[in-house]
Amino acid sequence: MADIANPDRADAGRARIDWALTEMPVIRDLMQELAREKPLQGLRLGGCLHITTETANLARTLKAAGAELVLCASNPLSTQDDVAASLVQHDDIPVFARRGESHEVYYQHIHAVLDHRPQVTLDDGADLISELHRSRPELLATMIGGTEETTTGVIRLRAMAADGALQVPVLAVNDAMTKHLFDNRYGTGQSALDGIIRATNILLAGKTFCVAGYGWCGRGVARRAAGHGAKVIVCEVEPLRALEAAMDGYRVMPLLEAAAQADFMLTVTGDKQVIDTAHFEVMKDGCVLANAGHFNVEINLEALEALSRGTSRPREHVQEYTLEDGRRIRLLAEGRLVNLAAAEGHPSAVMDMSFANQVLGVLHLVRQRGKLTPGVHAVPTAIDQQVARRKLAAMQIEIDTLTPSQQAYLASWQEGT
Amino acid sequence: MADIANPDRADAGRARIDWALTEMPVIRDLMQELAREKPLQGLRLGGCLHITTETANLARTLKAAGAELVLCASNPLSTQDDVAASLVQHDDIPVFARRGESHEVYYQHIHAVLDHRPQVTLDDGADLISELHRSRPELLATMIGGTEETTTGVIRLRAMAADGALQVPVLAVNDAMTKHLFDNRYGTGQSALDGIIRATNILLAGKTFCVAGYGWCGRGVARRAAGHGAKVIVCEVEPLRALEAAMDGYRVMPLLEAAAQADFMLTVTGDKQVIDTAHFEVMKDGCVLANAGHFNVEINLEALEALSRGTSRPREHVQEYTLEDGRRIRLLAEGRLVNLAAAEGHPSAVMDMSFANQVLGVLHLVRQRGKLTPGVHAVPTAIDQQVARRKLAAMQIEIDTLTPSQQAYLASWQEGT
Amino acid sequence: MADIANPDRADAGRARIDWALTEMPVIRDLMQELAREKPLQGLRLGGCLHITTETANLARTLKAAGAELVLCASNPLSTQDDVAASLVQHDDIPVFARRGESHEVYYQHIHAVLDHRPQVTLDDGADLISELHRSRPELLATMIGGTEETTTGVIRLRAMAADGALQVPVLAVNDAMTKHLFDNRYGTGQSALDGIIRATNILLAGKTFCVAGYGWCGRGVARRAAGHGAKVIVCEVEPLRALEAAMDGYRVMPLLEAAAQADFMLTVTGDKQVIDTAHFEVMKDGCVLANAGHFNVEINLEALEALSRGTSRPREHVQEYTLEDGRRIRLLAEGRLVNLAAAEGHPSAVMDMSFANQVLGVLHLVRQRGKLTPGVHAVPTAIDQQVARRKLAAMQIEIDTLTPSQQAYLASWQEGT
Amino acid sequence: MADIANPDRADAGRARIDWALTEMPVIRDLMQELAREKPLQGLRLGGCLHITTETANLARTLKAAGAELVLCASNPLSTQDDVAASLVQHDDIPVFARRGESHEVYYQHIHAVLDHRPQVTLDDGADLISELHRSRPELLATMIGGTEETTTGVIRLRAMAADGALQVPVLAVNDAMTKHLFDNRYGTGQSALDGIIRATNILLAGKTFCVAGYGWCGRGVARRAAGHGAKVIVCEVEPLRALEAAMDGYRVMPLLEAAAQADFMLTVTGDKQVIDTAHFEVMKDGCVLANAGHFNVEINLEALEALSRGTSRPREHVQEYTLEDGRRIRLLAEGRLVNLAAAEGHPSAVMDMSFANQVLGVLHLVRQRGKLTPGVHAVPTAIDQQVARRKLAAMQIEIDTLTPSQQAYLASWQEGT
Repeated sequence: MADIANPDRADAGRARIDWALTEMPVIRDLMQELAREKPLQGLRLGGCLHITTETANLARTLKAAGAELVLCASNPLSTQDDVAASLVQHDDIPVFARRGESHEVYYQHIHAVLDHRPQVTLDDGADLISELHRSRPELLATMIGGTEETTTGVIRLRAMAADGALQVPVLAVNDAMTKHLFDNRYGTGQSALDGIIRATNILLAGKTFCVAGYGWCGRGVARRAAGHGAKVIVCEVEPLRALEAAMDGYRVMPLLEAAAQADFMLTVTGDKQVIDTAHFEVMKDGCVLANAGHFNVEINLEALEALSRGTSRPREHVQEYTLEDGRRIRLLAEGRLVNLAAAEGHPSAVMDMSFANQVLGVLHLVRQRGKLTPGVHAVPTAIDQQVARRKLAAMQIEIDTLTPSQQAYLASWQEGT
Repeated sequence: MADIANPDRADAGRARIDWALTEMPVIRDLMQELAREKPLQGLRLGGCLHITTETANLARTLKAAGAELVLCASNPLSTQDDVAASLVQHDDIPVFARRGESHEVYYQHIHAVLDHRPQVTLDDGADLISELHRSRPELLATMIGGTEETTTGVIRLRAMAADGALQVPVLAVNDAMTKHLFDNRYGTGQSALDGIIRATNILLAGKTFCVAGYGWCGRGVARRAAGHGAKVIVCEVEPLRALEAAMDGYRVMPLLEAAAQADFMLTVTGDKQVIDTAHFEVMKDGCVLANAGHFNVEINLEALEALSRGTSRPREHVQEYTLEDGRRIRLLAEGRLVNLAAAEGHPSAVMDMSFANQVLGVLHLVRQRGKLTPGVHAVPTAIDQQVARRKLAAMQIEIDTLTPSQQAYLASWQEGT
Repeated sequence: MADIANPDRADAGRARIDWALTEMPVIRDLMQELAREKPLQGLRLGGCLHITTETANLARTLKAAGAELVLCASNPLSTQDDVAASLVQHDDIPVFARRGESHEVYYQHIHAVLDHRPQVTLDDGADLISELHRSRPELLATMIGGTEETTTGVIRLRAMAADGALQVPVLAVNDAMTKHLFDNRYGTGQSALDGIIRATNILLAGKTFCVAGYGWCGRGVARRAAGHGAKVIVCEVEPLRALEAAMDGYRVMPLLEAAAQADFMLTVTGDKQVIDTAHFEVMKDGCVLANAGHFNVEINLEALEALSRGTSRPREHVQEYTLEDGRRIRLLAEGRLVNLAAAEGHPSAVMDMSFANQVLGVLHLVRQRGKLTPGVHAVPTAIDQQVARRKLAAMQIEIDTLTPSQQAYLASWQEGT
Repeated sequence: MADIANPDRADAGRARIDWALTEMPVIRDLMQELAREKPLQGLRLGGCLHITTETANLARTLKAAGAELVLCASNPLSTQDDVAASLVQHDDIPVFARRGESHEVYYQHIHAVLDHRPQVTLDDGADLISELHRSRPELLATMIGGTEETTTGVIRLRAMAADGALQVPVLAVNDAMTKHLFDNRYGTGQSALDGIIRATNILLAGKTFCVAGYGWCGRGVARRAAGHGAKVIVCEVEPLRALEAAMDGYRVMPLLEAAAQADFMLTVTGDKQVIDTAHFEVMKDGCVLANAGHFNVEINLEALEALSRGTSRPREHVQEYTLEDGRRIRLLAEGRLVNLAAAEGHPSAVMDMSFANQVLGVLHLVRQRGKLTPGVHAVPTAIDQQVARRKLAAMQIEIDTLTPSQQAYLASWQEGT
């Protein structure tokens, strides 16, 4: 019971999954520990996640812990078909995901997971849990809760909660320090640039690189683009972040002004229509557009098409739009996540921490079953700290600890100048 | 009614205060607005603050707003005597502060401020408000509240609150985003390096620079030291911060290991005895020690003296300790805040934001008089946002705003992949 | 008359060649200008170059200028088969190059070019011109000269000249400022990292990255690795470069010491057996080895094989050697140029300058026919300046010019303090 | 026989000179070695140098080697009076230099040195040797040669040589790799920023910092300003350097365009009237101007004065010019070298290398007496290498050496792909 594209590529997938595991020491240790303890024995889990080598190791860990897990993709373009095949064949985990699946099939796959009647959901953008609320409300009664991996998903879930629509507790894994501080900054930072370079092979040195959004993703990308010798411009809507970007040495300006001088524009905002008609109209010939936020709504593709007299595909992940006046706009990966579509997504080393939070988060939900109120919950600090300590140990980095008198000092207020 | 060192240097002080004001556009605007409105008319304020040119502009703003303000120093070595003189002579603000004053005089000055019976206190380390609680509890009845500028002070106040000892509301100005994100990272970042370079004139390029503490101060210093070509080592006790430092490209290790290879060691931890006997014993000949945390307790000076067979003073802010085996350890500014003692403290541009929070914080306390419970309170987000918007405007940086449909998108959860 | 792998991929090649041309504005202008003037009409040219999209645009420019050009590969693994196909089919340029060709075929291809009796050779490592001297000395009589693109090739040619073996003038294009300062630093800088990331998808942040060689390539890679958050170690044999690396903030140490702590080791030295048995013996489990110098001799592969009990191929460009004690060493691209084999070589924007020097260099040789002595010659400064001015203009960067009085000032010595 | 300002500050000077010596390990070793050998016994030396603590250690080394040395200042504002006093009192070296001396006295002091009839001159800008040629040609007969420390001085000497005016051999110490690569980039890089920060105490983060000139000084300053969070603009007249600056990630534009947006402008060009009327007219209110090139001619002060309706002196090293329209331009250190006038010049660690070249250069001139032709000569590579090796050893940095087979490989050309 599965729907995958290339069953015969399972072995290739397994080799890559094993490769990823070498960069995921925290997950590797958890997999061994939980296989002995089986704390999730018999639990039905549904995951709507990017089907990558790292997700495979998360899935194997959950299964090792005893769970009955079914997976679908959280993005039609992000599935790695060999990984899906390996999970089905080598690990006996049902997977419903085909790279390039249609919108319709995408939702069929989500429903295939819902048919499994998950007690705990794992989401990468809240599609599974919101669809469950919308069309399968009868499942809510047996649900223990869910976890959410992304900023965008957490925003959606908070909006659900604000509307009184969210019926179960959801752990905002994204908000764990060991997730968003590392995953977004270091993971998206490296992989978004990687995707752009693989897709274009254009030299960054001397180019003007505009980053829309100075959240953790934006910071990671901005630093790496600057490290490649690009002139970085940051666009923001939050005054505090704009100030930080300015004091970090970047030029900050409205997007319309940036669009007129950029060689590259990357959106990492989580919002829609960030790059729109007004911006297309002022762009330089050859401007490269990419998105590493979440959905493919950050760049207004309909508007771009409406302005174009023709398109071509000069490289695999490049769609070149020729505007009426002859300027060419180069869209990468159809506006979808460039780091997943044109590269390989987050490097394993950061997913190691994100997914350790997922595993420990699911354990927490199960242990606290019935005690957590419906709504969005933070990952407990103890889990965050545990993940950080495990990661440092794996990196062979030792750190200091406070002496008792230093702890006492921090806790005291009598001692003056 | 004042106690200052050099009344005749008032004019020099005023020139420097005016110079600072050109870098404090947010305070400058507030000074003009509040002089018209006089919202603090008749209020008794007591400030225990570093007496610098920026503090002078804060004091002038509060006075312009109608307040009756009395000031003392928050550190025996941080007073700029010409500034104190100018405040007394040109602005008629009583100041009790002499650079280099003894511990005894330091506390006499705090009591001089308490004699003024302040209704609102402004602290830079919580010495004034804690002394008020300890020895002048009768003033608590008429107090409206206080503000606290520093991390260390907030830690002490939280400890007081946890003990049930804090009797009034205190605004943690330090925790305002527009304060600690900017002041510590950019202000201490620049001024701590400035202090070290002024004190020593040693080339940083090629040297090993150890930063103990990777909070906002530590990050700012680490980036700038790396920008000067130093090889930076970070020491931390918090695993999350240690991981961030490692992924930001710094070597992370226990302090004892770092001490054996450092040419410079800077403490920015807020804790005591961070650098201690064990570290002195392994240091290289010529190692330079400085502190930009808070008090002069971060380096264990008694232990250093106990290990030394003699000291000399080769440059103004350098005390050179010769250990028994001939190695020389160079302590800057007697272990006090090197950025204040050997340089001029935070540049005006960051204090502009910190002190805008102070002014708006005092206004908030007064307006909310009687409504805030005793304890440590956050600066309201609206104040933080206001300060950021005012600062961006002063820097002539424009940013985008969300369109209504973008706001709606962020608030919705129905729209899926 | 050609030997290529995939004639049917010519159209795909052409699309990529055209894409590259958009990033090669200087070559594009030269192609148009020289097509009008035909200054190389009837000249027989032989090129032994990496067969890439940029080389295709160089070849098209030389042909547009009237030359009769024949090409072979300068590295068995660097040929892009679609490009070779396009040159043959669309541009009617004979090409002898197949990706993955054997050593034997590689030399057969060189001889195919020599059969064309080139009057001017273009080399990327001196294989063509040295083979010509060795086995086809009868061609020397009609030769005008040659050009050499690489550091390694120039070193070989200087050695030939020192031996009295070099019979014709060769322009060291590599030594043009607009070549080696840009190509090595920015081109190899970006593409070597690109190759490593594509081959491994391992996160660089927090990893220890060892660069062997601090020439222009090494500098470019070191800066970019640091920009990705890696801890960079530099190894050098030249004391001046070692000092520069140290003062640029990198740790500098002997390679044996670096090998024991590196997660990545990259050679960019131009020498052989830089990484050898002693280094393999101390490496950490999982250490990644790559070369972006010139030949595949920088890493001693025989020694590595001798130490290994088995190998596997977990990803396309990764060969994993398992040593007797279980440690795994991961060799990228069989030790050949990782930026060509696992990525796409230098981005077009830098090759634009290198190849503008090639074109102008060939013109110079032809114009100076008979006037240049045998030996290695510098590219004339006027050519270098011309390339730089053309590139700046293409990047829409304007710069200042000295006023006459400023020029006079620089030329005078009478004016004192 | 001396002319100094403060004989009573000799002890303070000595403490600082000794402090500098701890950062000058190469000079320290040379001082000990040459004191034993006395290779300059009886030689008359004249030095026209910045009178700093490092120069003092150079002077002590030359004297230890047996020379009879007389010194004057090479800049009226750069003399450190306590150092002059210590040299006179503790080392018995005649010094003619007073900080702030008039133009007239400056030349009187040069003539006092010429009265000593130097056989070898040491210059820091070629004032001594050019004045010797101009007004004391009779000394040329007994002269052995000279050394020149600066870029500017070498330019002047080359102009003299081109005019046929230079009568003696002069070693261009400035052009030694271990001098200009380190001194300019790392020394001026740190000290110019230090001077600007000491003079103004303005936050660099978020400010626009314009560097005119992208030679080694400009590169060093640009990197450090960027490291402080400034937005750096580079202005150049050389297309190659302009291209490098662009590819290093800086914005490059004409100075007039930069002047309209800069918060700071620093000249490091070696030419005159770089910042002139047209630039003053477009500057923002509060723009800070400084020079770290050579003479105070880089900023056209007469033009600035002509545009101003008044000036004031808000801080020690700041002259504030108020233009007719109310804008204020802030000139640091009267347009003289800001790193010497407002800070302490190059840190000792870089002067250590420069002055090791000076010492070994003087020895070379003496040993080659009569063999060198009049004109500007390079420092022999062997000296350069020796200085680098000595410095690395002092920094406890070990490096690799080539194996015989690696050396052979580099020298061979037979071995192909």
